[in-house]
Parts: sequence; C-alpha cells; structure tokens
Amino acid sequence: MPKGTIYYVKIAVTGGAGFIGSNLVLRLLNDGHYVTIIDNFSTGRIENLGDDLHHPRLVINRIDLTDGDATCKTLTDVDVVYHLAANADVRDGWKHPRKDHEQNIMATHNVLEAMRLNSIPRIVFSSTGSVYGETKVVPTPENAPFPIQTSLYGASKLAAEALIQAYVEGGLVTATIFRFVSILGPRYSHGHITDFMRQLLRNPDELMVLGDGSQTKSYLHVNDCVDALVNHLVSRDKMCTYNLGVDHTITVHDSIGWITAEMGLTPTLKFSGGNQGWIGDNPLIHLDIAAIRKSGWEPKYSIKESVIETTRWILANRWVLEPKA
Amino acid sequence: MPKGTIYYVKIAVTGGAGFIGSNLVLRLLNDGHYVTIIDNFSTGRIENLGDDLHHPRLVINRIDLTDGDATCKTLTDVDVVYHLAANADVRDGWKHPRKDHEQNIMATHNVLEAMRLNSIPRIVFSSTGSVYGETKVVPTPENAPFPIQTSLYGASKLAAEALIQAYVEGGLVTATIFRFVSILGPRYSHGHITDFMRQLLRNPDELMVLGDGSQTKSYLHVNDCVDALVNHLVSRDKMCTYNLGVDHTITVHDSIGWITAEMGLTPTLKFSGGNQGWIGDNPLIHLDIAAIRKSGWEPKYSIKESVIETTRWILANRWVLEPKA
Repeated sequence: MPKGTIYYVKIAVTGGAGFIGSNLVLRLLNDGHYVTIIDNFSTGRIENLGDDLHHPRLVINRIDLTDGDATCKTLTDVDVVYHLAANADVRDGWKHPRKDHEQNIMATHNVLEAMRLNSIPRIVFSSTGSVYGETKVVPTPENAPFPIQTSLYGASKLAAEALIQAYVEGGLVTATIFRFVSILGPRYSHGHITDFMRQLLRNPDELMVLGDGSQTKSYLHVNDCVDALVNHLVSRDKMCTYNLGVDHTITVHDSIGWITAEMGLTPTLKFSGGNQGWIGDNPLIHLDIAAIRKSGWEPKYSIKESVIETTRWILANRWVLEPKA
Repeated sequence: MPKGTIYYVKIAVTGGAGFIGSNLVLRLLNDGHYVTIIDNFSTGRIENLGDDLHHPRLVINRIDLTDGDATCKTLTDVDVVYHLAANADVRDGWKHPRKDHEQNIMATHNVLEAMRLNSIPRIVFSSTGSVYGETKVVPTPENAPFPIQTSLYGASKLAAEALIQAYVEGGLVTATIFRFVSILGPRYSHGHITDFMRQLLRNPDELMVLGDGSQTKSYLHVNDCVDALVNHLVSRDKMCTYNLGVDHTITVHDSIGWITAEMGLTPTLKFSGGNQGWIGDNPLIHLDIAAIRKSGWEPKYSIKESVIETTRWILANRWVLEPKA
C-alpha cells in the first residue's frame, strides 16, 4: 500500500471465535477493518470476543463450512478470507477420522469454491509445521524434502494447502500459507498447558505426562502470529508459503518447570514413556524461520514468556478449562 | 513369500473397469487371484474386460466411492486394495472443481475408512508425477523439495497420498504409493493420442495442437505399469513411494510424428501457442526412476513403442473414441 494511504478492508475470518481467530478479529477491528466471523462454534467461544462482541464493524455468522451451499451464501462481499477454521485436535485424530477430512479438507474446498463463485480474490491460510512429518532436516525450511505425513491432522492440512495452490495456479485467488508451530497466549484453549493445569488444579501433587518429557517443540505467541497474519492482508506475491515460529525450542520438561513454578507447585511427575506423546506426535518440531524474517517479521516473545503468560491467563480465566456450555 | 509357495489372494481393484484397472484385473485373474472390481462406470467400460467379464474368479460391483456407506459395505473380505479409481481428467479440472475433490480425495478417504473398519491391511495407490508441480529438480526423485501444486488433479492426488500416509503411521494399513507418468497401451481411453486421432479421423489434413508442441513428457507402457503394481501385491515395507516412468522423454512433436506416420497422414500442424497445453499443464515431466529400478523393476517398452502400439490399438478399437453408450 502507498505510504500515507489507509485502506479499510472487508475481511472474513473463518474460525473467528476460536483461539487464534478471535485474537486476529480483535486486531483487525482495532485496525479499522470490517470483519465477518464465520464459525460453527464447535470449539469457538463467544467469550473470546469479549467487549467487541457487539462491535459495529463486526458480523458473526454461525455456519458450518462443511455445508457448501451455506458457505457460498455466507462468504460474499469480502476482499480477503483468513481461513483459520479447522479441527485442531491433532492428538485424538483416530477417535474421529472423519473430522479432519470434513473440517479441514472439505471445508477448505468449500471456502475455495465460494471464493471462486463469489470472486473473492485473496486467502490467508493457517497450515501447520506438522505437514513436515518426521523430517530429518531440522530446523526445517519451507522447501524441505517432500514430506511423509504422520498424522491425519497434518495430512488434512497438507491437502488443504495443495487445494489452495491449485486455485492460485488457476488464477482464481492469491494466497499466503503459514505453517504454524503451536501457538500460545491469551484465549489459548487446548494443548499441553491446559492438560497439565487441569490435572494440577484437580491434584496438585502429581502430574501425568505423555511420552518421556523429552519431546522438543517450538511455540509462538499469538500476538506474534497475528502480526504475521496482518502483514499478509495484502501481498504483491501471487502465492507464498512461510513457516511461523521462533528460533529456539524447549522440551516438555522445560514447560512443566515454568508452569508449576507459576502455579507454585512441585508435583511428582509420572511419564507414559516413549519419545512420542501419541501416535503421530512429532518428537521434534523446529521450523526454519529465515524466510519470514527476511520479509521483516520478527517474533517478539520467547517461548518461556509465552508459556508463563499463557499459564497466568488460564489461572485468571478458568472458564477455558470447563467444558463448553 | 517363501519360494515354491503360491498364494492366491483376494484383491479389490477400484476403477477396475478403467484403462489401467482393467489391464491389472486381467493380469491378476491370469495369475490365479480372486478379484473384485469396484467401479462407478463413469469412465470405466465393460468392453475393457473382454472375455474375462464372466470369469469365475471375478466379481463386479457398480458403486460410487463417494458413497461412504456403500464403500464400507462393499469393500469387505479382501486382502489388498488396488485403489486406482479417480477422476483422471487433468485438463478440464476447472470445468468441474468438485470432481477432483469428490472422486480423488473423498473417495480415498472412504476407501481408507472402509479398510480400517473392515480390517483390510494393505493398499496400493496410483498417484501421479503431477504432484511435483513445476519442480526445478529434473529428473525428479521421490524426495524432491516440498512441491507446489499446479493442478486440481495433482492437488487431489497429493491429498490422497497424505491421507494414506497418515493411516500407515496410525498402524492401520501398509501402503505402496506409485507416482505414475502418463500411461499408454491397450485400452488407453483419453489423452493426447485420442485427441489427435479423433481430430485426424475427422479431418486428415489438419491437426490442432495445444501449446507449442515443445512440452516434454515421459510415458510408460501399461504392461510395465502393471508389472510394478503386481510386484507390490505384498511388501515387507510398511510404506514406500515410487516414481514409475521411463528414463527418457519425448516432445509432443515426436509423438505427432509417430502417430501420423502410423496413420499414413501428413497433416498441417496448427499450434495454440505457449509452453503449456492448458492451465496446470506441466511443460516438463521427467521422473527419476532409480529407486524402483533398485527394487528390480525395469521398463521394457520405449516411449516410441508405446505411442505406436497405442495408435495401432485405437485404430483397431475405434469404439474407444466414441462417447460411452
């Protein structure tokens, strides 16, 4: 955009009531844009929108993206789609194998078809570092060797990426695809920190840990994530793909130390064993972020800061640990 | 298998009435196996089965794999699934964007779910060299850099590969994935040779060619393809992926020369221009076949032999050029 010019854009955010989606929506509203949330509220929560629930520039549509007709009727009159809606339950993929297929692949197909039919020119997509499977190249760059999928979640996100790329090549949309590490921060709703805290609030003396605690992962603060998403509201590139993470990693052990210290607890740790927390768990996720760095983006939070802030936020917002009403 | 022991296996072949599928089915019957064809006959033809249509070890089920319940009820009591059913109409992807999604991704999901629910342990899958998009690494090995999809067809096949890999990692199936170049030979039903011959039989004096004729491709004879498929009826590997092609390439110009010579014609050539025949056409497909070679397989036909045999077969079986009854 030319300097000094401000554009207010009409934006749809699928999954806009979810963890990352709601953080993005609040930022976009704050920046002056017009936002339409599309969410089926299966995991998204009205609470996440706080005081902005009735914002004059916000519209909320409760539809399920697996319904192609409803998607096509709803996803109209916007300039950009942030497609964040997904089944993000990586661990329990095998308990409901249709879910990844329907929520991640079919939904993306329906979003792309709605964009084609309604002439919406741009999509920004939240993919995952899980698409690299158990790659041997670490830190993993975007052009790592052709990956082998190790989870239904990763497979379904790769499928969605592939569909988006085909629509770009077909000249129908432009796209930025982000491959996220796990995201932490305010409105965090599920993952190892909620698992641990739920256990510890029930029994402060013992913590059961999946795997042997040595799994090495990278985490990004949601504010850093939203910075990157917003930077790609417009783009000169027809298509680009960026890893999104931080330059360092931690082990599950590190995270346990910070969480328990923040909670003032010293529980006995019990381990299920093995270097995987579950089938398809990648024991090592560390993305190379040189490419997105070159574009000017820089993570501002360390993983330690993110873990501690997330722990504090959950302690102050315990409703997030309760089953949805 | 121990030497000297012969196992007759129960095998399902999806798309078994199609070009490659019918060639495979006839070979499997000839080898003594029990075969169930699953085909929706949208492009598959009863004619392809010839005298074996009423073979005592052959069962034919007309169902559509997009119907999950029907798939689950039909795909039972077999040891191996050759999953060849697909929308193979690469060129016209954008005329019906749902087709690749439904026939290639959703169908594969339904096949895998049926295999999980009915405890069928092995799948052999026909993917495509198109999954490499416009890779810069040529000849292209299986572990080429993370590809960017350029067609809905390639994207949908990559999605299917990814789903299969996740099911392998989940311990539910073993798999061999083959990435084919274009296949030629008896029962060939669509592609540049039928396009050219249909034109030339109508008007022997002129041939309209998509692109500039310089597109460089590799083609494999269906007998060589079936050899590789049959070699992987059983495997010691949980999961492997092989390119399937020949070591040389030809241009569209070469192919035109062989086809017209075989037909005894010297038409004027007209070119639509550009280095792509259509959106998503890869101007250069040349797969590295070192890996499958190491496993003992070797292509027996040159591309020239394949093109000439295909031309002759079509001249003797002109029904293949007619719309299906």
